[in-house]
Amino acid sequence: MYQHKIQYYETDKMGITHHSNYVRFMEEARSYALEQAGYGYDKMEENKIFIPTISVSLDYKKTTTYGDILDIETKVTNLTPARVEIEYVMKRGDEIVCTAKSSHCFLNENSRPVAVKKTNPDIYKVFESMLETKGEL
Amino acid sequence: MYQHKIQYYETDKMGITHHSNYVRFMEEARSYALEQAGYGYDKMEENKIFIPTISVSLDYKKTTTYGDILDIETKVTNLTPARVEIEYVMKRGDEIVCTAKSSHCFLNENSRPVAVKKTNPDIYKVFESMLETKGEL
Amino acid sequence: MYQHKIQYYETDKMGITHHSNYVRFMEEARSYALEQAGYGYDKMEENKIFIPTISVSLDYKKTTTYGDILDIETKVTNLTPARVEIEYVMKRGDEIVCTAKSSHCFLNENSRPVAVKKTNPDIYKVFESMLETKGEL
Amino acid sequence: MYQHKIQYYETDKMGITHHSNYVRFMEEARSYALEQAGYGYDKMEENKIFIPTISVSLDYKKTTTYGDILDIETKVTNLTPARVEIEYVMKRGDEIVCTAKSSHCFLNENSRPVAVKKTNPDIYKVFESMLETKGEL
Repeated sequence: MYQHKIQYYETDKMGITHHSNYVRFMEEARSYALEQAGYGYDKMEENKIFIPTISVSLDYKKTTTYGDILDIETKVTNLTPARVEIEYVMKRGDEIVCTAKSSHCFLNENSRPVAVKKTNPDIYKVFESMLETKGEL
Repeated sequence: MYQHKIQYYETDKMGITHHSNYVRFMEEARSYALEQAGYGYDKMEENKIFIPTISVSLDYKKTTTYGDILDIETKVTNLTPARVEIEYVMKRGDEIVCTAKSSHCFLNENSRPVAVKKTNPDIYKVFESMLETKGEL
Repeated sequence: MYQHKIQYYETDKMGITHHSNYVRFMEEARSYALEQAGYGYDKMEENKIFIPTISVSLDYKKTTTYGDILDIETKVTNLTPARVEIEYVMKRGDEIVCTAKSSHCFLNENSRPVAVKKTNPDIYKVFESMLETKGEL
Repeated sequence: MYQHKIQYYETDKMGITHHSNYVRFMEEARSYALEQAGYGYDKMEENKIFIPTISVSLDYKKTTTYGDILDIETKVTNLTPARVEIEYVMKRGDEIVCTAKSSHCFLNENSRPVAVKKTNPDIYKVFESMLETKGEL
């Protein structure tokens, strides 16, 4: 499980964590989950596979602030040869503070869509394994 | 119409504008639209009304990068006594690069929901005017 | 010793960690050191003491990038009743990647300078202890 | 003269512009000044010249906050075949809120130092012109 501690620079003048930062926490958690699954972003990019974000949505349930520790669960909820969808639950202790989704496509170094299942089956398998461990990451 | 020019620090190692920044562009455009409508965030907060973001969703259509100029249209698509929904269209020239939505509630200085239509009718009217000028902002 | 792992959103289109982020890493490390010393920023602010930054300087020795882990040492190098100076050394493994300094004053809730040694001797002692443990934090 | 309007997301829980953001304002102003001088960062990078930041120092004179407009003056204060130093004065109206310096080296696409005066005299001339117009940019 990925943890993020809210930094002072992540707060705003309302005294709370600025909502834009949660999109960054999603990326941190996604990056960590991939690394745990044995295939970090850096390794993907070495293999000329890029996974840009094509959509995000976030529901802010509770405000958080400086010093709060967020536990972030990540799971792959949908996987096609060319696309992956990921869900996130962010908690402070037992309390859900934010739920979110992101979707991503697979591109090669020329920014062309790649059917990664064929071209890089090892990468596809990483996401597949995150799908299988649904809810347990 | 609000304009944002992409800064170097807004790009990432993929060479494109990092997707988290668009949530900030939404805030810039929203802030600008409210100010144009005669009631900026600072004036609201002086009147002890706070408008935290309770959800956002973004669809990234095209990547952008350093030096690109985004034109951002903002319109209020739904307004209730306690809540407001806003839509955004971000273009580079004629090309739509991102569409997005956000929703916000009205809180007082004690973080309690406020039926702003009653307590601060002038603020409600600002959002109402943004609703009426739908598509023209 | 504080550790920061470089995130994807902290990189720029040159492929390296954007230099502005190191000012944030300094804050992270400072915040952590104070917390370790028993008096985090949140506790200070509860006691109505604020420690704004009045200057920073940074020397970038080596570039870093996504996935790099920075070890950040923090020490108080000068302490007066109204002001504190802090130095930072950031390393990737044995390699120094950035050295930096910051100075801070003590303000009360009305943004007035406070001789914290008198008004809040417990806070002063925290910084003093960081001075004594020079080089070992 | 470059102008930056402080955004909500640039503030922190102290209610002021977070000090790390001024390093970004420096980049914005530098980028703008180069563009005005006819040679933006994008054009430099097309010519395989990169200008990473090797040091920055900032003195925060006054706090600023959401909605404040900063006027930022930029001037080249030192130029050698391999390096450039730039100074910044940031004002809110007549009031100086921050002064700063940065230094930069010239690198080629392989991250090797370049004597840009020889390899890209047109780029060198741009910085030279910013030196000549000292104080007037």
